[in-house]
Amino acid sequence: MEKFRFLTSGESHGKCLTAIIDGLPANLEIDTDFINAELSRRQGGYGRGGRMKIEADTVEILSGVRFGKTFGAPVTLVIENKDFENWQKIMSADPKDVTSEKSFTTYRPGHADYAGSVKYNQKDLRNILERSSARKTAIEVAVGAVAKLFLNQFGIKGSSQILQIGNAKTEEEFHKEIDMAKSAGDTLGGKIKVLYENVPVGLGSYVQWDRALDGRIAQAVMSVPAVKSVAIGNHHAYKMKGSEFHDEIFTEDGKIVRKTNNAGGIEGGISNGENIVVTAVMKPIPTLLKPLQSVDCATGHPSEAHFERSDTCAVEACAVVIESRVACVLANELLLKYGGDSIEECLLKIEG
Amino acid sequence: MEKFRFLTSGESHGKCLTAIIDGLPANLEIDTDFINAELSRRQGGYGRGGRMKIEADTVEILSGVRFGKTFGAPVTLVIENKDFENWQKIMSADPKDVTSEKSFTTYRPGHADYAGSVKYNQKDLRNILERSSARKTAIEVAVGAVAKLFLNQFGIKGSSQILQIGNAKTEEEFHKEIDMAKSAGDTLGGKIKVLYENVPVGLGSYVQWDRALDGRIAQAVMSVPAVKSVAIGNHHAYKMKGSEFHDEIFTEDGKIVRKTNNAGGIEGGISNGENIVVTAVMKPIPTLLKPLQSVDCATGHPSEAHFERSDTCAVEACAVVIESRVACVLANELLLKYGGDSIEECLLKIEG
Amino acid sequence: MEKFRFLTSGESHGKCLTAIIDGLPANLEIDTDFINAELSRRQGGYGRGGRMKIEADTVEILSGVRFGKTFGAPVTLVIENKDFENWQKIMSADPKDVTSEKSFTTYRPGHADYAGSVKYNQKDLRNILERSSARKTAIEVAVGAVAKLFLNQFGIKGSSQILQIGNAKTEEEFHKEIDMAKSAGDTLGGKIKVLYENVPVGLGSYVQWDRALDGRIAQAVMSVPAVKSVAIGNHHAYKMKGSEFHDEIFTEDGKIVRKTNNAGGIEGGISNGENIVVTAVMKPIPTLLKPLQSVDCATGHPSEAHFERSDTCAVEACAVVIESRVACVLANELLLKYGGDSIEECLLKIEG
Amino acid sequence: MEKFRFLTSGESHGKCLTAIIDGLPANLEIDTDFINAELSRRQGGYGRGGRMKIEADTVEILSGVRFGKTFGAPVTLVIENKDFENWQKIMSADPKDVTSEKSFTTYRPGHADYAGSVKYNQKDLRNILERSSARKTAIEVAVGAVAKLFLNQFGIKGSSQILQIGNAKTEEEFHKEIDMAKSAGDTLGGKIKVLYENVPVGLGSYVQWDRALDGRIAQAVMSVPAVKSVAIGNHHAYKMKGSEFHDEIFTEDGKIVRKTNNAGGIEGGISNGENIVVTAVMKPIPTLLKPLQSVDCATGHPSEAHFERSDTCAVEACAVVIESRVACVLANELLLKYGGDSIEECLLKIEG
Repeated sequence: MEKFRFLTSGESHGKCLTAIIDGLPANLEIDTDFINAELSRRQGGYGRGGRMKIEADTVEILSGVRFGKTFGAPVTLVIENKDFENWQKIMSADPKDVTSEKSFTTYRPGHADYAGSVKYNQKDLRNILERSSARKTAIEVAVGAVAKLFLNQFGIKGSSQILQIGNAKTEEEFHKEIDMAKSAGDTLGGKIKVLYENVPVGLGSYVQWDRALDGRIAQAVMSVPAVKSVAIGNHHAYKMKGSEFHDEIFTEDGKIVRKTNNAGGIEGGISNGENIVVTAVMKPIPTLLKPLQSVDCATGHPSEAHFERSDTCAVEACAVVIESRVACVLANELLLKYGGDSIEECLLKIEG
Repeated sequence: MEKFRFLTSGESHGKCLTAIIDGLPANLEIDTDFINAELSRRQGGYGRGGRMKIEADTVEILSGVRFGKTFGAPVTLVIENKDFENWQKIMSADPKDVTSEKSFTTYRPGHADYAGSVKYNQKDLRNILERSSARKTAIEVAVGAVAKLFLNQFGIKGSSQILQIGNAKTEEEFHKEIDMAKSAGDTLGGKIKVLYENVPVGLGSYVQWDRALDGRIAQAVMSVPAVKSVAIGNHHAYKMKGSEFHDEIFTEDGKIVRKTNNAGGIEGGISNGENIVVTAVMKPIPTLLKPLQSVDCATGHPSEAHFERSDTCAVEACAVVIESRVACVLANELLLKYGGDSIEECLLKIEG
Repeated sequence: MEKFRFLTSGESHGKCLTAIIDGLPANLEIDTDFINAELSRRQGGYGRGGRMKIEADTVEILSGVRFGKTFGAPVTLVIENKDFENWQKIMSADPKDVTSEKSFTTYRPGHADYAGSVKYNQKDLRNILERSSARKTAIEVAVGAVAKLFLNQFGIKGSSQILQIGNAKTEEEFHKEIDMAKSAGDTLGGKIKVLYENVPVGLGSYVQWDRALDGRIAQAVMSVPAVKSVAIGNHHAYKMKGSEFHDEIFTEDGKIVRKTNNAGGIEGGISNGENIVVTAVMKPIPTLLKPLQSVDCATGHPSEAHFERSDTCAVEACAVVIESRVACVLANELLLKYGGDSIEECLLKIEG
Repeated sequence: MEKFRFLTSGESHGKCLTAIIDGLPANLEIDTDFINAELSRRQGGYGRGGRMKIEADTVEILSGVRFGKTFGAPVTLVIENKDFENWQKIMSADPKDVTSEKSFTTYRPGHADYAGSVKYNQKDLRNILERSSARKTAIEVAVGAVAKLFLNQFGIKGSSQILQIGNAKTEEEFHKEIDMAKSAGDTLGGKIKVLYENVPVGLGSYVQWDRALDGRIAQAVMSVPAVKSVAIGNHHAYKMKGSEFHDEIFTEDGKIVRKTNNAGGIEGGISNGENIVVTAVMKPIPTLLKPLQSVDCATGHPSEAHFERSDTCAVEACAVVIESRVACVLANELLLKYGGDSIEECLLKIEG
């Protein structure tokens, strides 16, 4: 059993997104403002569409926190979908409300529409779209923010950086690249670097494949919608020689130090005390103004992929989601290694 | 609980490597020759060192197979380490045999030595080396071979291809690149493509982050020793536009078809019926003839990293290991989706 | 990974109880009236205290159900705590609301108070009481009701029966026994039998300890607050001879039949087609009008255990909770054995 | 993920039984003599049949232990089946050895034969018997012995006691009861009490059903072949009043103490520092000299249940198996609560 675990729920146009987090130690201060700031980071970034303006996501805590602190009980986080009132009937749980309004039947390439409708035997693709939407990453960022609050107790800090958007490799060029894509009715992806500092030596292991820290990070990051590639450390590893790649080991004031970090902080599946460096690739957003060729599942005839108001580029948002996922992995690994049912006990242990 | 699960054990110079596989359906034919052929593929490849000649790995089945078929009971696979007789005392479980012969104390950069010795509180780095060694992938390939035998029942076939070794991008150049590295006492990594054909629509899901097929494949591949990067589908995704990247959908004889497969067979975390395409990067082997600068953990003084007989390039072996890992993920997903406690029941269900 | 899994959250006097259920197949009809009827069964029974009158629990579905049917997405269930308005400040997540109102410091014997406060490092035992309270079983019954709706699709039906309350062994005597205990300021437990009919042959297994159906049922039932004993089948097994106990096997119209069911429907950890029979013992409720001797954790001095309005006997409620737990186990096992992502696919498979 | 986890394999008449234990901290001394002594305890007891004489089980350690200590790597334990030479062809993995020798087709009531053969689609019931046999508990006792060695580091000790065999309730009567059953060609079960002393406060939890310590113990014990009932604490709970049952709380020298332990050391799903008391019921052995009525699965005709040399009573062996299972649960819980990758780190933490 994982120590830090959670389930999320909620549809893109449903009433709300919900998460239950189980396994947090007691007496962790939960700073709601920090969670909301993370939600706001996720909503920002150049190239976002209209929906972002409607919703300024804020979290509500329904359980597990009393007077600002956890006490062992599961924490419930809720983010309301602000435009639910317009969707109340369309997304109703009540069989009496059944309607075909807003249903749609053309598979959108790059989305779960086709595979999801086969898997779950659905004819109205709205039943696939609603959960497969990236909207659910909002609540995941809230969960990740809680994980970060835990990591902060141990001085572990995450950050991220956009390395590339389309063919633009520097910040100055990003806006121009996005503007061009937008005016062409097209979309862009990019490359993101996430970094965690101050991670202790010894998280994860090589003893069994499913204990490897790099494997666990890779799962958490690759399962972010739109991520198609994950790398740990220097992503030129394939073309470097052993003598160039491996990070030589030195001592400084009796401590082990490195001058390079090509390994990205993980050797043999274990954190080695250097910064954890994760690079991920986000594919371009699949909902295009310029429609893609597809098929209508109701008729079997060719059709153009449905357009819902969308973004040109969401790489910055994706960076926040990836940070959040890695935070969850590290929080769990920290609890697995050091144990502890209260923050006081965790701190005692991690500090030896 | 996973349906197909396994644990492996064994040290690089221990008596043997062992795997217990739990959850295989009954009446699956276990072709030992096929498993051995896979083991032999793993041992091959240009650029391997001396040890490969000593050991022609073969599997022994200790449980779970009777008259060539599974019957529900856990399957035990064993691969003996052929040179164990030379290591019997050094690797002995018996406290009376204690010796410092073959112990070593200089952390090898790129290996688990440093992080592992801190984590497990070991002074003799042999106690880290022995399990963190890539030797354990032999038994994982045997497990993967069993998974492949299961997948074969449904027509699912895996294969792999080397895309790059160092700076060499075509097969003709690979040997030259390896020869050059070898004569320089250096090592090489590379880029590998693994492909699975005939995977049914509907494995994995977007409904919860840990059900995503791409995430599960990423974990399985990234936790292979030496793998530093995993991609699903076209690994140029970051620089492609939405209109270029997404695989348009057509019908042919009433069936859904694609003309491209940039998604690599997975959309929204679910297999979409196209080939599953995984690209992985292997870092250069960290055990170099040309020693790296490091530290002796016994003295705290600078020291040169220990050299054990090793390979210049093991990209081909790594490809087989990755194939095996993906096979295990797919076998588990197939069993989760379709159920079945015997091959007959599985076949009935998968064929509807 | 389990196929049917869920997390619950919520405190006894918090805003609400929440559950997220992940892994339900699509197209399952969710009958809210049935869930509410189950909640009402849980609230009934002779011997309940005052709180039951305040709350007529009803479920709200926040996600995962559209027009009365599941569609693959996680289902969120919420039950509001009706008297939350009186507790809003006391149970507030906001640090500004901090108050010692309703805090308490005397460990109640039989509750988690002592062990919980040590584990989670809490001084106000309210922080333990609130989650360890049996109140959380309300949302578990809602989850169980959903599991029952799934089981009903395959004709699997659960029911329960009170075998004993205190020393009373027949229904006529139950009320008298409870009245006597009540007037003495005391509480009662009892013995409950839960039965599931129409369970197919082949759920669970003997191949690995954690796959055994009886073990999984035992965990689910023993973890119900107040349950101290679980038996499968004839609970006189310990004093019966082999020739008396074991259920001989016959055929009738070509089908395997039994004349007895001492095994309670499980042989070798696998369902054998007979009714699943579970007997559980509920201990007497630990919150007594007649206070128990204890200790005040603030002073270390002797103190009498705190009294909150409570019940004399909740055996009937407990029976409903146990039914619910067993339903969840069976739903998961059914999905593990037969697979299926939609009800149509499940039905196809289970019917061969 | 569990911290202490294992898989076992092996058939009753196969070459050997194997276990792989993953997650043990490093530097734990593994005393092979202790493991063998536990194996010998399992083989003892009045009322055992002939097979016990053939096999004096001893363990061999194939991995994970060097010079008497663990070092983080998975531990492989093997117990050879001494009469395998007589079964080599019959239990062969090789398809060329196929034979119907020793196959059998009459379902034995009380065994997995019927349910197992349906589940795994087997016609030769030997394929069910071999793994469902209680023989596999030998390797589980070896695993439990390793768990006990870990628990011993923290002063946690297990023991067991036979409370009843058939209708005999005192040790003096046990032999007579067994002799009588034996001469009647019958078998007996009984009631067993297992006790663990010195368990720290705070293992397990009430926060989520699957974290409850009592639930986890119940699963581990109920899944022992032949166990049909598990109780924690006073198994008269159902007929006791609240004022009688609950263990009042006192202080002595500033420490929390109890005068009774009806709760069996677990309140609210958490260990409370008192002895963990588990009572289990073992059913009578289902293999009788006096055959039971059954059916031949090859013909569908009535038949008498097959007899293999067996025991009259194995309650003492069962007690050792239950002790072992509880040891595994406690070892895992201890590691989950306190963390630690080496014994030194575990000790540091548990001692605060």
